[in-house]
Amino acid sequence: MILSNVLNYTAMKPISFKIEKKMNGLGRAGALTTPHGVINTPAFVTVGTKATVKALTPEQITDLGAQVVLANTYHLYLEPGDEIVRDAGGFGKFMNWNGPTMTDSGGFQVFSLGAAFGSKVGKLSKVTQGEIVGGDEIEEGDVAGRLAKIDEDGVTFKSYKDGSEHRFTPERSMEIQHNLGADMIFAFDECTSPAASYIYQKEAMERTHRWAKRSLEAHLANKEAAMKQGLLGVVQGGRHQDLREESARVLGAMDFDGYGIGGSFDKDDMGTAVGWVNAILPEDKPRHLLGIGEPIDLFGAVENGCDLFDCVAPTRTGRNGTLHTRDGKINMRNAKFVRDFTPIDGECDCYTCKNYTRAYIAHLFRSDEMLAGTLASIHNLRFLVSLVDRIRKSIIDDTYEALKISFLNQYYNK
Amino acid sequence: MILSNVLNYTAMKPISFKIEKKMNGLGRAGALTTPHGVINTPAFVTVGTKATVKALTPEQITDLGAQVVLANTYHLYLEPGDEIVRDAGGFGKFMNWNGPTMTDSGGFQVFSLGAAFGSKVGKLSKVTQGEIVGGDEIEEGDVAGRLAKIDEDGVTFKSYKDGSEHRFTPERSMEIQHNLGADMIFAFDECTSPAASYIYQKEAMERTHRWAKRSLEAHLANKEAAMKQGLLGVVQGGRHQDLREESARVLGAMDFDGYGIGGSFDKDDMGTAVGWVNAILPEDKPRHLLGIGEPIDLFGAVENGCDLFDCVAPTRTGRNGTLHTRDGKINMRNAKFVRDFTPIDGECDCYTCKNYTRAYIAHLFRSDEMLAGTLASIHNLRFLVSLVDRIRKSIIDDTYEALKISFLNQYYNK
Repeated sequence: MILSNVLNYTAMKPISFKIEKKMNGLGRAGALTTPHGVINTPAFVTVGTKATVKALTPEQITDLGAQVVLANTYHLYLEPGDEIVRDAGGFGKFMNWNGPTMTDSGGFQVFSLGAAFGSKVGKLSKVTQGEIVGGDEIEEGDVAGRLAKIDEDGVTFKSYKDGSEHRFTPERSMEIQHNLGADMIFAFDECTSPAASYIYQKEAMERTHRWAKRSLEAHLANKEAAMKQGLLGVVQGGRHQDLREESARVLGAMDFDGYGIGGSFDKDDMGTAVGWVNAILPEDKPRHLLGIGEPIDLFGAVENGCDLFDCVAPTRTGRNGTLHTRDGKINMRNAKFVRDFTPIDGECDCYTCKNYTRAYIAHLFRSDEMLAGTLASIHNLRFLVSLVDRIRKSIIDDTYEALKISFLNQYYNK
Repeated sequence: MILSNVLNYTAMKPISFKIEKKMNGLGRAGALTTPHGVINTPAFVTVGTKATVKALTPEQITDLGAQVVLANTYHLYLEPGDEIVRDAGGFGKFMNWNGPTMTDSGGFQVFSLGAAFGSKVGKLSKVTQGEIVGGDEIEEGDVAGRLAKIDEDGVTFKSYKDGSEHRFTPERSMEIQHNLGADMIFAFDECTSPAASYIYQKEAMERTHRWAKRSLEAHLANKEAAMKQGLLGVVQGGRHQDLREESARVLGAMDFDGYGIGGSFDKDDMGTAVGWVNAILPEDKPRHLLGIGEPIDLFGAVENGCDLFDCVAPTRTGRNGTLHTRDGKINMRNAKFVRDFTPIDGECDCYTCKNYTRAYIAHLFRSDEMLAGTLASIHNLRFLVSLVDRIRKSIIDDTYEALKISFLNQYYNK
């Protein structure tokens, strides 16, 4: 009877993870099975903030090799509202994306974008354009503390759109994410400022752990949702090794379907900090490093045991004209591309590189044509998706170190 | 020898037109053969102002059933410059569109957009966004006369982008259009204001006839271009029957490969005015009515002998949220669509209607998402392309009158 129950419970798990190959150290290649298909890991997750990967159709997302789309709970809650998305059949169906889906907890945006409303923090002005601001671009200082009011039960914050007041609790985040209906959802967490003190980081982390427990309970209490959606806990702890390790231990002991790693890191040694966490987290569950998309960070994260990454940078910087090539980034608004009839990257297999010249793309950018954003996003996403796919293959083929050295030397022109 | 030369000359003609079925009166269904494929007429021509149909890939243009793309000479001359487009292999190759192509003469924009620079004419402010302004939206009054300086040889005008001075002559328009490389190009014409006097209209029309002759001579003098590109003369004459008829007679006697019908008409009876012209133009050559896209005008133009139409309205109004349905136009920003989980038009076979709900499209518009413009443009273009295709079939099947009555009654809710 007891065994049978365990088997049933296991069989009911909406997501499962299988390690296919381990590297020396923490890195691994695996397969993450979701109700909407298998994600081969490591995998780069495409961000579709408001149930749309900006400027792309779902067919274009599929064609560029993306396996999974992550939408932002905070944004969809505010617009069009999670109940409309629920009535549409979940955000995947709403946007006509049939593959695996994720939503984040809303925590990051509550603290970063809530802080932005009415403030004059430089980079946060971008949020008025209606898009998530990546973790590595935020410099909220302690403004968040003033505009997002945190108490033990949850957080009260202001909409980045109109300043209206809203409240998220772990239970509310679960309810909203159940309505949004993604295959993988995240426990509600507090995302602290990198400038916060050690004492505050510890206090916030401990609150995040209590919120994680409440998120898990609220998730499992909704049996229908728990059968269809996997819940990932979010490790916090800032830049402090002892806090990161404690967070991994506490959350690792809870029965999450996987783990997110959130918050800020020392950019010069992200891999090491991620390693502190992944050495402790259960090995048999997938790990998602939130908000990372710079090539060198992807290598550092993979070899330290991360399986999934998401970042708005490839689409956002792409729309501004910054494109990845194997020799580093180039900006298409540079005059030298106006008569350059070669592709963005001669070795790239994306739709953009197969069909268009730098001269044409430069023309589209100079003319502020919408197609510029589409072609640039396809290329940049394909570049990162393809890079992570190559990293995956190199793990399986035991050629990871060679790939890492050759790619990084060429990309960063060392 | 003489016969052989005539045959060679005919065989060398880059475009040919065959009437497949005639209606009572002037209307007809036909097939227009170009170096890049056959256009079944009547056909709605998709506008790709700057060598891009705004927000769409060429695959999306093909998928929605568009047969031909028209780019604007004035815009491509200013940006990126016709020599870059020539070096790219022509505007079709530049934008990765392999089907038939057209460029206009540049005349309409020289007079309408040249007039816009530095002026405060209401609707013309739109041009700073870098797109052609449709003929029926222009209210240039006599501003054009001040900013576009016309002489017998040509016209000096200011760039709508930076106010820099430029000059077009018939010979220069041909040179630029040869560089742009479209299958069908237009003779350089003067596009007068609807407010201009009869005397000025007549004077301008006679100048347009002299420019037409010079355009034809300049075109034929470039033997390589003349083998690949067909030249269409542009009938002018404003709203005056005698001028329109005279223009049709004079140009009809010149050896053009087809004809454009330009300038302004009385919107309430466009069909009649078009009929004056088409009753005189050679029957065996295609006729393109420039800048028309309202359903009732398409019917009026077809039954009065037009074969081709182009208009920016479906993409421009689409990007603003105005979408065609069989019951007339709707605006997706209207609150009533926020929870409407039906397609834009339940009978429409376009990609947008097959895959997305009004609620999703309303969400994209409210969120200012780029995909809104893409999905709206696909739908509106498909709506008009499909309507003209149905008109064509109805001509062949002798069911034109029934289609006209049922469509117009439903669309205009009569």
